[in-house]
Amino acid sequence: MIKFVPENIKKIVPYPPGKPIKELERELGITDSIKIASNENPLGPSKKAIEAVKAMISNVNRYPDGNCYYLKEKLTEKLGLSMENYIIGNGSSEIIEFALRTFVQPGDEVISSEKTFVIYKIVSNIVGAQYTEVPLTDRFGYDLKAIKNAITDKTRLIFLSNPNNPTGTMFGQKELEEFMSGISDNIIVALDEAYIEYVPTAKKIDAKKLMNDYNLLVMRTFSKAYGLAGLRLGYGIANKEIIGYLNKVRAPFNVNSVAQVAALAALDDDEHLLNSVTLNSDGATYLYKNFDELGLSYVETFTNFILVDVKCPGQKLYDKLLREGVIIRSMKNYGLDNYIRVTVGTQEENARFISALKKHLVN
Amino acid sequence: MIKFVPENIKKIVPYPPGKPIKELERELGITDSIKIASNENPLGPSKKAIEAVKAMISNVNRYPDGNCYYLKEKLTEKLGLSMENYIIGNGSSEIIEFALRTFVQPGDEVISSEKTFVIYKIVSNIVGAQYTEVPLTDRFGYDLKAIKNAITDKTRLIFLSNPNNPTGTMFGQKELEEFMSGISDNIIVALDEAYIEYVPTAKKIDAKKLMNDYNLLVMRTFSKAYGLAGLRLGYGIANKEIIGYLNKVRAPFNVNSVAQVAALAALDDDEHLLNSVTLNSDGATYLYKNFDELGLSYVETFTNFILVDVKCPGQKLYDKLLREGVIIRSMKNYGLDNYIRVTVGTQEENARFISALKKHLVN
Repeated sequence: MIKFVPENIKKIVPYPPGKPIKELERELGITDSIKIASNENPLGPSKKAIEAVKAMISNVNRYPDGNCYYLKEKLTEKLGLSMENYIIGNGSSEIIEFALRTFVQPGDEVISSEKTFVIYKIVSNIVGAQYTEVPLTDRFGYDLKAIKNAITDKTRLIFLSNPNNPTGTMFGQKELEEFMSGISDNIIVALDEAYIEYVPTAKKIDAKKLMNDYNLLVMRTFSKAYGLAGLRLGYGIANKEIIGYLNKVRAPFNVNSVAQVAALAALDDDEHLLNSVTLNSDGATYLYKNFDELGLSYVETFTNFILVDVKCPGQKLYDKLLREGVIIRSMKNYGLDNYIRVTVGTQEENARFISALKKHLVN
Repeated sequence: MIKFVPENIKKIVPYPPGKPIKELERELGITDSIKIASNENPLGPSKKAIEAVKAMISNVNRYPDGNCYYLKEKLTEKLGLSMENYIIGNGSSEIIEFALRTFVQPGDEVISSEKTFVIYKIVSNIVGAQYTEVPLTDRFGYDLKAIKNAITDKTRLIFLSNPNNPTGTMFGQKELEEFMSGISDNIIVALDEAYIEYVPTAKKIDAKKLMNDYNLLVMRTFSKAYGLAGLRLGYGIANKEIIGYLNKVRAPFNVNSVAQVAALAALDDDEHLLNSVTLNSDGATYLYKNFDELGLSYVETFTNFILVDVKCPGQKLYDKLLREGVIIRSMKNYGLDNYIRVTVGTQEENARFISALKKHLVN
């Protein structure tokens, strides 16, 4: 009936709508399932964030602050630069959308790695960009040299997920500086640091010092270590020129007020962040030990998830564990048929996962 | 430094970031200001919604349901049709964005009225569309005949705000049906019913019965009568083909989980909705009476705001009332220099506004 839908829109396969866990449980006749599939913080959000939300929720009849004034102010206190160097999004996935809508025209080229965050490709397709996927190294890392070699005159945007989802690997300061060196002013490099809080301090990249010299956009989120995935809040950091352009395509009230208040409180809760990171590294150690005992190889992680070679079809293992109420992620869609990605959970969740894994690996 | 920003992006003037009211108060040295400028529900959100949020907020570490399953289920119970006829947005302004990104290519034409919701024009500019504004009738209403006459081969999308923001006028079932009759399949008509809950039942349009025959997209919001503006939740209703296309450009987790839970509870709170609508009609009656006594003409409203001819520059009146802590909206940007738009508030707020108005009209 509609005659005029653009070809690039017609071609898009939308992200398949999943059912809520409660509906899934009802269909499968199970209860008390655990979800260690989406790299959420198993500790929950900061109690300070919860209290802050409860204190303001009766005012949600008011529109949000469209400029996220207090949140930007707090971010500059914590991270430096000035408020004009920050842009806040409805999740960091919205920052990805802003970058594509601002800088990429239909037919332009976007480059990233294969086996990386799927949203780069999905949104690139929506804006009608050519999307080039460069293979990983044989150690599941970003191949920055190959990505640089893949640049053409049409390249406008490069996404680097660091640490990378779903492999958990990362590159360092030196590799980033080498990569940026000589990159054309025709290109924006978007460095996605969604998992940065899990990275040991000595390994963290200081991208800010490159922002004056390069078109470098750093993206971060409150969905992972800060435990606020349900509220949708992410941010971008870049030079003022880039942020100014991104603001042109941002809707006036893109970030809800509950997310702003919760994130502000979460940034003041260092204890919750430390507990989250500690729980994660303890959990990863426990999982490594069990994978070793089971003779399974895995990629050592800089994040809150682990990519594991389960030596059998990951999709089948996913189905079996689902029926046990243990929800993990199959890596079939990433071309890694014998792999799963598992989020580090609480100690109980990790133990339940290992127990279910042992049961079904032998079957 | 960035060499390749597309011309249509460069031209965009971003929505100017306002300061939070607290910052404004500090600068002006005032306290306890009232905001009757943004058509928010002065009663606040439903208590059921508040309680529902408090009960789930400790789970916001989990990603939202990307499909808004329970909310769509509830909407179909209330409004009919099936879940595939609904799409949920980060505010209804995101539904506007979806429609433009899906159906409008750079150079295509979008038509609406002048003196209508500003977001239509802003987002049309972002996608590089030609935006045509058709004058209102001399009674501040949409001129549907003139809009129909303005259609060209390049027209892809028409926005109809009904009731219209900022004039408060509306057209009826017969006018809509006459307008839709003969409209080309090359065009989507987006009917924005943000204020529908304030419209008397006898005047409400039943657009659903036109959806099988026409490319008609109805847009609604929880930001007005439902009192959830801070949470950002709106929805679109259309035939499955249109909704299917809109879903292609929707990000997987565009709607936060707090908004979903609050809206679900708000839809079960008929008492709050009734109280909100009654407070509004009582307040409008009070304001009309005072405007009459002051000899000011105004447009009778089908919404929660009133357009008033204050017979002096509205921007100056805005400045004066601001210093009294009464925040209204000047209509200067709409080409209505001597007009203000005032949201119907609580009885106290309305009285304080009238008192401040009397003081400054004579000065």
